[in-house]
Amino acid sequence: MDDKRTLIRLDDETSEDEDPVVPISIPAKPIETFGENRSEEMPTTSSANGAAHISGNNQNLLADDLPSLLEHNGPPPPVNTINGSAGNARNHINDSEPIFHLRSRTAAASTPNYESLDYEVCENTLFQEEQRRRLRERFSLRKDVIRWIIFIQIGIITALIACTIDIIIEELSELKYNFLKESVADNVPLSDATGRDLVIPFLYWILLSILPVAFGAAMVTYIEPITAGSGIPQVKSYLNGVKIPRIVRIKTLAVKAIGVITSVVGGLAGGKEGPMIHAGAVVAAGISQGKSTTFVKDFRVFKAFRDDHEKRDFVLGGGAAGVSAAFGAPIGGMLFSLEEAASFWNQNLIWRTLVASIISVFTLNIVLSAYHGLNDFTFTGLFNLGKFDQPLKFDYFELPIFMILGVTGGLLGAAWNSLNTKINNFRKRFIPWKFAKVIEAVVVAMLGVTLACLMIYFINDCRPLGNDPTIHPVQLFCEDNEYNAVAALWFQTPEATVRSLFHDPPGSHKILTLAMFTVVYYVLSCATFGLNVSLGVFIPTALVGAAWGRLLAMVTFYLFPEAEFLHPGKYALIGAAANLGGVLRMTISLSVILMETTGIESSFFFPLIIALISAKWVGDYFNEGIYDTQIQVNHVPMLPWEPLPQYKGLTAKEILSSPVVCIKLRDSAHYIYKVLKKCDHNGFPVVDNVIGDRRSEGRVCGIILRSQLIVILLKSLYVENKRFWLPETSIQTFRDVYPRYPSIKSVRKLDDKINYTVDLAMFMNPSPVRVNPHDSVPRIFQIFRALGLRHLLVINNENRIAGIITRRDFIYK
Amino acid sequence: MDDKRTLIRLDDETSEDEDPVVPISIPAKPIETFGENRSEEMPTTSSANGAAHISGNNQNLLADDLPSLLEHNGPPPPVNTINGSAGNARNHINDSEPIFHLRSRTAAASTPNYESLDYEVCENTLFQEEQRRRLRERFSLRKDVIRWIIFIQIGIITALIACTIDIIIEELSELKYNFLKESVADNVPLSDATGRDLVIPFLYWILLSILPVAFGAAMVTYIEPITAGSGIPQVKSYLNGVKIPRIVRIKTLAVKAIGVITSVVGGLAGGKEGPMIHAGAVVAAGISQGKSTTFVKDFRVFKAFRDDHEKRDFVLGGGAAGVSAAFGAPIGGMLFSLEEAASFWNQNLIWRTLVASIISVFTLNIVLSAYHGLNDFTFTGLFNLGKFDQPLKFDYFELPIFMILGVTGGLLGAAWNSLNTKINNFRKRFIPWKFAKVIEAVVVAMLGVTLACLMIYFINDCRPLGNDPTIHPVQLFCEDNEYNAVAALWFQTPEATVRSLFHDPPGSHKILTLAMFTVVYYVLSCATFGLNVSLGVFIPTALVGAAWGRLLAMVTFYLFPEAEFLHPGKYALIGAAANLGGVLRMTISLSVILMETTGIESSFFFPLIIALISAKWVGDYFNEGIYDTQIQVNHVPMLPWEPLPQYKGLTAKEILSSPVVCIKLRDSAHYIYKVLKKCDHNGFPVVDNVIGDRRSEGRVCGIILRSQLIVILLKSLYVENKRFWLPETSIQTFRDVYPRYPSIKSVRKLDDKINYTVDLAMFMNPSPVRVNPHDSVPRIFQIFRALGLRHLLVINNENRIAGIITRRDFIYK
Repeated sequence: MDDKRTLIRLDDETSEDEDPVVPISIPAKPIETFGENRSEEMPTTSSANGAAHISGNNQNLLADDLPSLLEHNGPPPPVNTINGSAGNARNHINDSEPIFHLRSRTAAASTPNYESLDYEVCENTLFQEEQRRRLRERFSLRKDVIRWIIFIQIGIITALIACTIDIIIEELSELKYNFLKESVADNVPLSDATGRDLVIPFLYWILLSILPVAFGAAMVTYIEPITAGSGIPQVKSYLNGVKIPRIVRIKTLAVKAIGVITSVVGGLAGGKEGPMIHAGAVVAAGISQGKSTTFVKDFRVFKAFRDDHEKRDFVLGGGAAGVSAAFGAPIGGMLFSLEEAASFWNQNLIWRTLVASIISVFTLNIVLSAYHGLNDFTFTGLFNLGKFDQPLKFDYFELPIFMILGVTGGLLGAAWNSLNTKINNFRKRFIPWKFAKVIEAVVVAMLGVTLACLMIYFINDCRPLGNDPTIHPVQLFCEDNEYNAVAALWFQTPEATVRSLFHDPPGSHKILTLAMFTVVYYVLSCATFGLNVSLGVFIPTALVGAAWGRLLAMVTFYLFPEAEFLHPGKYALIGAAANLGGVLRMTISLSVILMETTGIESSFFFPLIIALISAKWVGDYFNEGIYDTQIQVNHVPMLPWEPLPQYKGLTAKEILSSPVVCIKLRDSAHYIYKVLKKCDHNGFPVVDNVIGDRRSEGRVCGIILRSQLIVILLKSLYVENKRFWLPETSIQTFRDVYPRYPSIKSVRKLDDKINYTVDLAMFMNPSPVRVNPHDSVPRIFQIFRALGLRHLLVINNENRIAGIITRRDFIYK
Repeated sequence: MDDKRTLIRLDDETSEDEDPVVPISIPAKPIETFGENRSEEMPTTSSANGAAHISGNNQNLLADDLPSLLEHNGPPPPVNTINGSAGNARNHINDSEPIFHLRSRTAAASTPNYESLDYEVCENTLFQEEQRRRLRERFSLRKDVIRWIIFIQIGIITALIACTIDIIIEELSELKYNFLKESVADNVPLSDATGRDLVIPFLYWILLSILPVAFGAAMVTYIEPITAGSGIPQVKSYLNGVKIPRIVRIKTLAVKAIGVITSVVGGLAGGKEGPMIHAGAVVAAGISQGKSTTFVKDFRVFKAFRDDHEKRDFVLGGGAAGVSAAFGAPIGGMLFSLEEAASFWNQNLIWRTLVASIISVFTLNIVLSAYHGLNDFTFTGLFNLGKFDQPLKFDYFELPIFMILGVTGGLLGAAWNSLNTKINNFRKRFIPWKFAKVIEAVVVAMLGVTLACLMIYFINDCRPLGNDPTIHPVQLFCEDNEYNAVAALWFQTPEATVRSLFHDPPGSHKILTLAMFTVVYYVLSCATFGLNVSLGVFIPTALVGAAWGRLLAMVTFYLFPEAEFLHPGKYALIGAAANLGGVLRMTISLSVILMETTGIESSFFFPLIIALISAKWVGDYFNEGIYDTQIQVNHVPMLPWEPLPQYKGLTAKEILSSPVVCIKLRDSAHYIYKVLKKCDHNGFPVVDNVIGDRRSEGRVCGIILRSQLIVILLKSLYVENKRFWLPETSIQTFRDVYPRYPSIKSVRKLDDKINYTVDLAMFMNPSPVRVNPHDSVPRIFQIFRALGLRHLLVINNENRIAGIITRRDFIYK
């Protein structure tokens, strides 16, 4: 007999295998393997040992109810698609008949195989034992204190990452645009310049843009494609309960950080705000788990937080800390997370999130104050979008104007969303190759530079130096004491341009300049969002809005020169709010963020909210917000707040999936192994009172997850060898392998343990939520949504299983 | 046969009573009535007709399972206590053995009989029919539009009420304090004054205080006691799902409005903010129902919103509009509602609430601008607490000071809460008589005036006129060109005093003045909150905080005269925040409200939040926030966000109530009538497959509410006369009597309909939430809380009832 420790090794093949086993009735008929697909997929499984395989053609030989699942013959679906090998799944299924009900439906809808997270706490016997043990230890209080500590850590580390990204972007952009300015000054002879002289700076500019963009796009494409885009839709889906593979890994964070730096420095039309949420989320998930699977390092702390449910709350806090750091807006950041990202709220969570946000902004402030050499220890607030010097005022008769701006923002935003979706659909169809995706990003970067150069070349907008608002005045074709206002718009990061549009004194631009800029940037930002680079959509959207807002004020002032209320900065701000409302469809958080980042007074909330709400209503008439659109386009099974309208009249029996693969309370290891191999369901009802092997007619007494079954098989937790593992097995045994549960492939063939028995009584969740077949869908949706469920068992009045409902059933039926 | 219309009259006694009836086996034994208690309670029930009565002493004669409920003999509990006749209930139960399980437990805990609201939508056949019909009519969209319209109306009307209260208070206070000032000027000879000269103004002051206070207290005490206090705990309980009788009636609103005017004008230490939330809630409940039961007027609009679930959302919106109007702070108002009042959140609700708040503030602004004669059409914001002229700045080294202020606020707040609770407990025990309550309010008002006069008399704090911050400078004992700083603090409403403390220039008061003022007001406000008057706690709390905050700054400046950062207004603001945090234990909404009401910049959020969070944490160490304390003291079964710690290790079977009174799917009218008479449960499981009359062993197939059963009996919806009512009966039949369901007493004796049968299939809720006896309490608590349930059925694996869980079971066991 081996040392007991070896019993809980992952690849447990110890001597208790030789314990006496009860013989099991293995079919005597010659066994067929499944053919080439099958053997390719499971190189570790020798097809010679057929006992673990099931003949799809001979239902009656198997003495259990698995045959009911095998009504359709043909090759099986891929064995394990937890980590989202979506395309793979489709390849296999499209060339044959579907086998399992659930999978076939998924495949038919040609959606990727997103799995759910286990937000439902599995309160099995092991869990309850732990709870009872901990009740004595005042564990609850300790856990609470630790939770606060983690939230504070999340705030600090997120802020440090944000600072680093901030500073690097600022320094590199400074270098880049200074170099370009020098190059312009060197190459373009003043006043009598011709087009040809602009060629060298233009080429430099192209080079300095495509190099970082190509680097970033290549990293994103080849190393971690999940980092493409802003990350907000992904985080939102995650918080809703959808498992987005690899979303909260350290590698993702690294790629995201480098990706956002390269794209902003490369001059793409995007901002760093969205990625910051994602970065915060990764930090939160990492810290709260006290271990990194990427670095195979377990710090052995915070073990109690290792489940999806706890992690979710930390991720929300991290996201909030990320936005807060990105904008320097603690309350706005928290509200942003709540309004846009969170699917589950409660009071305590909100307070923790707020503290994380506050800590984050405070850390950011200290570091950035030190970096900018502000040594007078005065807390300034960051005012990312620049502080308005004098309080913005408005008159009642301006309210309709704000409303019109809001409506404009709603229309432009809805058009932007729809155009962007079309572009991305085009991309999906025609640019499938990785290399092409990188090239595409480079082409868009070049397009941006070219358009900017054309604007600079063709529009003659020279303004006198002196109270010039830009830090890099470019003389270009202008007179000696003038600077080029067009170049001023382009020769800085988008964030800095938003600042300029808000705060430049009236008369800083020609109407033509701003009009062209609006059009070019609208198109550019639309083409950019969806490229395989890490970029947020907030700043470009605000920029477009600020541009047309300012433009409208200028045009109106041009027509009615006596209208002195037309402060261009004020209208740029309202325009930005309207455009943001039209694209993102948020209201409260955006108004607070704009207020916190520009230091305006609270009485100006009112026009902002007017514009935002008008924009949201108008936009909502046409389509959904950009994040929700992206989630839909990617077929993420995200649960909305209310059930979809077409489900209103239905009942549970009309949407449930059946037949359901059940497992007996005491079932054979052999059967469980077969089931796991054969189907990729993630939850199996546990039944009792089974007559013979008609499992689906037993009384439901619980539910067990695929991941738990795999751990049971891996660690050989059988009835027959109980004495070896029982004293050492606790909920921790299952928690140790979280979150990357091994796949069934890692379970070696059962061989001699094939006749062992598994007793699920202590492992299963004995209290799954159950509903009746005639319950209405809005009602069960409410239950499913509010409790963050993964599986909902539908049972009839005799407590027999009628079907199972998962999140897909609320969306794709 | 009568006209069909009469069939659905409330007191239906039409001719179908004479239809042939199936004989029922009435016990042949002589029937005993229950004695004097019983016959007193049911004057309409003649004890001669014993068929409707049940002999408590003879269990075996009744051929059903009601006897199982009658294990203990004795007089029955009161028949109907829905409208909270709590004392009544106790009287009856205390003098005998308990009869019914649920009631006896309640009575034993000596808590009032609060009932739950039906936030769970009863999706019975009638409801589903309506849904299906409406699916065709695009009803959902129309309902949505109407919902928006209602929210907008709520905002406008709440604001108008708030304006009215505001203006009346302002005008009356102006009159009062002007009169007092004149009186002082007339009676007190300048400079060489003695105490005696102050007597006449003192008496005037007493008179002008006790008259309104006595009037207000009498109204509250004799007309509508529920209006006492701020109303926030009541609204919070309501939103949590507890039925607080009479809380959203028009009479309540009227008394509350008059009550708050009289108490503020009377000079009690209270504000109008809390009552505004309550006023908003009443407005919302009233408008959304489209009818007033008080005025017996049904406008026949908004019928679809007549259930507890819909009303809840409107009430939240109304509350938010109320706070917003009270403070002129739309975002703060919304967050206040969310943070303090709401128990159920979702995204759409938040948007609607925000719109109601915005509309409310806008309306308020227009009306008040017009009233104050600001005709320049500039939106000013209201800045209830006065706008800080120059931006508040702070240094990093002040952060620890802010934290210390926060800790101080937490300590003072916790002490205040505890002291206030002690005072209120004392009141409960020793001042039970209505008249005494009015007298008490008058005494406290006199005490306030006396203390103020003593302060004015003994403290000599004269300041030069000129840049005097007060509008009513009182010369009193001062020189000709001076005013009395002590009198300035007292001769205005508390809200105006907060404004003074925030904005008076440095050196406006002596240290002694402020120190005395702090102590006096601390004690006064503590004694005031809990009086039988309508008053909020926000303003006095802020006032105490502002006083000690300013005091601390002055003392420190006195000790370290070189510390120039010690701006007294800034520290008054932080002090107010800290004290509010210590008493109310909110953070986000308070910081936003303070910001919106004083117009400070968002960079000053940070110190506010620091102070608020420190105060909250320190305070939470000692006790709960004042609103939660009040809720607990009143034994309101309010469900917290998390299950109580002592419930952590329990399972459903340890907290459930049993035996449960069940009703058969087709049961006799007689039995139902008996059950309703005999017990006051509000939900009855409906069972099927009953062998004989052993109802509790049937299979559970639904749940029916007491109110539904009463309607069924009232309208004679029996199987035997189906043809008369079936075509005309819809969900509207039940909705028509909402929210004041008749009691069983209004059902006349069944007489000849005694043998009729009720078929519950179309009336019952066929999908009640069910749990298993071994489910853990935290888990079922989560279900109960998230879904806003009223009854949770505990069933075993054979689908037989094991018990029932209501909100009490999570709190009082």
